[in-house]
Amino acid sequence: MPTAQYRPLDTGHGRPAQSSVLRGAHGGKLRALCPKTANSRRIFVCVLLLMMLLVYVVWCAVANYTDDGRADTYTTSDLFDSKQTTELPSISCTESFVDTRLYIQDKSRQEWNNLSMIYFVTPTYPRREQVPELTRLAYTLLHVPRIHWIVANDYNACNPYLDILLNKFGIPFTHLSSPMPERFHNSKSKPRGVSNRRAAMQWLRQRNITSGVLYFGDDDNTYDLKLFSEIRETKIVSMFPVGLIASYGISGPVVRKGKVVGFLDSWVAGRRWPVDMAGFAVSLAYMAEYPNASMPFKPGYEEDYFLRSVALTLDKIEPKGNNCTEILVWHTQTKNHPREAVKISQEYLDNRSNLGALFKALNEMGVSEACEEEGNKAIISSNGKAKALSYYLS
Amino acid sequence: MPTAQYRPLDTGHGRPAQSSVLRGAHGGKLRALCPKTANSRRIFVCVLLLMMLLVYVVWCAVANYTDDGRADTYTTSDLFDSKQTTELPSISCTESFVDTRLYIQDKSRQEWNNLSMIYFVTPTYPRREQVPELTRLAYTLLHVPRIHWIVANDYNACNPYLDILLNKFGIPFTHLSSPMPERFHNSKSKPRGVSNRRAAMQWLRQRNITSGVLYFGDDDNTYDLKLFSEIRETKIVSMFPVGLIASYGISGPVVRKGKVVGFLDSWVAGRRWPVDMAGFAVSLAYMAEYPNASMPFKPGYEEDYFLRSVALTLDKIEPKGNNCTEILVWHTQTKNHPREAVKISQEYLDNRSNLGALFKALNEMGVSEACEEEGNKAIISSNGKAKALSYYLS
Repeated sequence: MPTAQYRPLDTGHGRPAQSSVLRGAHGGKLRALCPKTANSRRIFVCVLLLMMLLVYVVWCAVANYTDDGRADTYTTSDLFDSKQTTELPSISCTESFVDTRLYIQDKSRQEWNNLSMIYFVTPTYPRREQVPELTRLAYTLLHVPRIHWIVANDYNACNPYLDILLNKFGIPFTHLSSPMPERFHNSKSKPRGVSNRRAAMQWLRQRNITSGVLYFGDDDNTYDLKLFSEIRETKIVSMFPVGLIASYGISGPVVRKGKVVGFLDSWVAGRRWPVDMAGFAVSLAYMAEYPNASMPFKPGYEEDYFLRSVALTLDKIEPKGNNCTEILVWHTQTKNHPREAVKISQEYLDNRSNLGALFKALNEMGVSEACEEEGNKAIISSNGKAKALSYYLS
Repeated sequence: MPTAQYRPLDTGHGRPAQSSVLRGAHGGKLRALCPKTANSRRIFVCVLLLMMLLVYVVWCAVANYTDDGRADTYTTSDLFDSKQTTELPSISCTESFVDTRLYIQDKSRQEWNNLSMIYFVTPTYPRREQVPELTRLAYTLLHVPRIHWIVANDYNACNPYLDILLNKFGIPFTHLSSPMPERFHNSKSKPRGVSNRRAAMQWLRQRNITSGVLYFGDDDNTYDLKLFSEIRETKIVSMFPVGLIASYGISGPVVRKGKVVGFLDSWVAGRRWPVDMAGFAVSLAYMAEYPNASMPFKPGYEEDYFLRSVALTLDKIEPKGNNCTEILVWHTQTKNHPREAVKISQEYLDNRSNLGALFKALNEMGVSEACEEEGNKAIISSNGKAKALSYYLS
């Protein structure tokens, strides 16, 4: 997601220093320093020009440095070096190609069989909100015919709880374990979701899936059902506005006479494709022509470099959503709260009450954890008064 | 929602002062102040006792003051005075009893006809995230048979955009305009959602709806579909755990031998029913016996006083979700961002491009607004460079 911290140095930065030099030239003290002879004047001008050249070179170098993202832990080789992801290879945990739904929207499932498939890639990571987010998203996807949900989890193992959860919905799905490379764990701005999406692309290639549409849909976004019927017909790359992005509340293509001519997005930063991850879909037939298509580990530039890697040009873009006048996807964000421990003695987590099974479920879902020694002391009350646990359970 | 700011004075507050007095009594200086004769000693003890009594009385008064909520703008009469809400009466904007869905889950709609009705009350208020939140929630509710969605908007008029939106889904619904009384607009902690839920209850009474189940479901929560089949059979009041509440990550009943015996919730604060708004459902047949059932304008105490107003007792509670061991509803919260203006000249919002229609839609949905004079300047870029709007549009 584009955030202010990746903005390259503003091109106006040089101006204040320059103008103060000009102001100084009008002052009396500087005039005294002026060379008196014609020769020394010539030398002075040369030195001045050389200094300006030096300043310009240094400035360009600094600007490039920031633009390449080398200031952080990212190297240029990170951009597309797929070998780097093998630090911790992604694993395909479960694949299910069976659609158990009988009816989708107002038709039986069979009636939709002629539609092309949408591969909906959802990067996710373990946190308190993971299970509800995936549940809520699943209830939207349940209305979508011909969809394969690729859930790529930023975790170094297959989470059996996620498998059970995803299986329950009846949507065809693939559960991948795709941890972020270790070297980014301590970086200020983590390239979240990249190894997940790379793993999904790898999975599609390994299975030689070269028809249908690829869409990157985060677990906390909101999708209008119309989005799916719009992107399903993508020939090359389709684009559409995304609501709730940054200060404008919107990011999306500017369309004139049915053609995309530019982009409305408050953060340009040299991005040729200043779009949100949820703002485009790609045909897999088209992607098959670019076997090296990938996504960089460079926060803020994932979309841009991915679209560069499939050799996108303005004329290839298909505007959707009534020529980009409708908002069919929203960058809704869910508040994150850290996982906390609840201090409760193990002796109360037996079958005398629901507490044992409840905390077992909470732990499996990564919501909270019952601890003997630390955490927020478990308070149980009745009639407005907290009492010792033994009062209820002994 | 219970938050720390409503916590009454902690009962342990007196302790540090007391112990410092004790420490003082061991010091040399205080000993010098001790009365020497028996009579003066008796007077000294009496004065000491009187002072302690005074401290106790003052402390009790302060505690009561906070507990009653009189410290804020709330008066005791607010608690259930329904006349107060007539400051700005709620309006029923649109009612639709038609269910246009053909299939729900894996059955035709008719097959569900014998189920009792769930009245799902959603308080909402105008903000950037309102349209996506209601859209996402609707896609969950679309899977629920026999539901009537009461959407009560904290706005002093009927919002036509909401009407069109709600109509689109095909779920029976009622759109109410139910603004919060003016006098709370400047209060520190606004009693949000109260006039909305009161309006919904008033609507149910006016239509003499005395069968089915009432459930208060906020627009940003996440609901497992199993929740609906569980609460549908509520005879009096059913209760179940709510995930992601405060520090425990959970709030819910403690169940022993199939009976609710207490509540696990980190914030007690004298609440007889320390539960979340999404943690219970009420039978409308039962509620009909309590025509004065209402909800107070008292942040943090809405659930408690509402359940008191229907004369709830522990033995009336029906635990759901496999004896309160499953989490079927989550208090997911969406990040709120303020609505901002986008600075763009009106001349570019014509039919030369999609920008006119796009900003019209954004304005109707309350996301952002195009302004001539102020706001974040609209940047349109192509090939990584921002250019003047006239470049694209003239």
